[in-house]
Amino acid sequence: MIDQLIQLISKLPGLGPRSARRVVLHLIKHQETLMQPLTQALANTADSIHICPECGNIDDLSPCKICTDPKRDQTVLCVIEEVADLWAIERSHVFKGRYLVLGGTLSALDGIGPDQLNIKGLISRIEEGDVKEIILATNATVEGQTTAHYITERLSSYPVTVSQLAHGIPMGGELDYLDDGTLGAALAARKPAA
Amino acid sequence: MIDQLIQLISKLPGLGPRSARRVVLHLIKHQETLMQPLTQALANTADSIHICPECGNIDDLSPCKICTDPKRDQTVLCVIEEVADLWAIERSHVFKGRYLVLGGTLSALDGIGPDQLNIKGLISRIEEGDVKEIILATNATVEGQTTAHYITERLSSYPVTVSQLAHGIPMGGELDYLDDGTLGAALAARKPAA
Repeated sequence: MIDQLIQLISKLPGLGPRSARRVVLHLIKHQETLMQPLTQALANTADSIHICPECGNIDDLSPCKICTDPKRDQTVLCVIEEVADLWAIERSHVFKGRYLVLGGTLSALDGIGPDQLNIKGLISRIEEGDVKEIILATNATVEGQTTAHYITERLSSYPVTVSQLAHGIPMGGELDYLDDGTLGAALAARKPAA
Repeated sequence: MIDQLIQLISKLPGLGPRSARRVVLHLIKHQETLMQPLTQALANTADSIHICPECGNIDDLSPCKICTDPKRDQTVLCVIEEVADLWAIERSHVFKGRYLVLGGTLSALDGIGPDQLNIKGLISRIEEGDVKEIILATNATVEGQTTAHYITERLSSYPVTVSQLAHGIPMGGELDYLDDGTLGAALAARKPAA
């Protein structure tokens, strides 16, 4: 029984057999304050989560809270790779438009082409006519940038502005510790000092 | 709903908010293969686990499988700090006696004295008369060694042999990478070459 629980927990990302054992012993030590609420929360979540048919976000409402929020600007659509990226942008409290989750990046090695991503959803959102700007917020990896490039080409015939997240020095970043790629990108994208 | 689950998971040892979000997204992506079995395993475990009244182990049987196994030598008792240590010794498949979990170490700072540990259980096991050897397998930390020392003194009047785990170079350990304490202990405890 306990072995099975440890084995399942050791399959979670970032956990291995040793940390799974620690987690299980911790859960057993804190049955009422942690194990029971966690079991309950897992059961509730499993029953109630939906993948938003509009944007691909995960939420207990369908369509999700963001897609149904009338205060959010539906003319700006931010394209991200995964739901985790959507949550990350939400935590910055800066973006007030809507989202579209691609579900990954183009990757010839993994056999992921445009049909495996939600490009179709993106295009149908554009064809509905409300969207005026697409912000490509894929990761600054080779795959993320390839995907952004592909989408830019693909959307060239549509009447939308396509923009991309700025690359540069992260806030608080020290030049001496930055990789050459970031430094080069920051130099190339230099702006008039404010 | 999802936020509550993330918050609970981020309280587990070794996990923080970021890794908890990753875990939750992974669970949602693998609902049938991981989330449902995990929910079930948690519920089952909560219903069925017991703390063994004999040794302090955690098991679905009470007394635990080790305490009720007639093949295990009940004249040798291995004293460990926590259940995790018991599991670690079991994984080595070397020890065939029984256990006693102390539940921690003496620690003046944390207000843990002999009465907060299961010293009473240890002494009553000895007074029952079967035990001939006590192996102190507390951690090689200051607290662990203080506790081992205290127990050795406390048991001096009982007709039992008290031994302690050997300290030395771990298997596969390279001298150059070892701390001075381990190296010193290994030197002091040197043995005739076999």
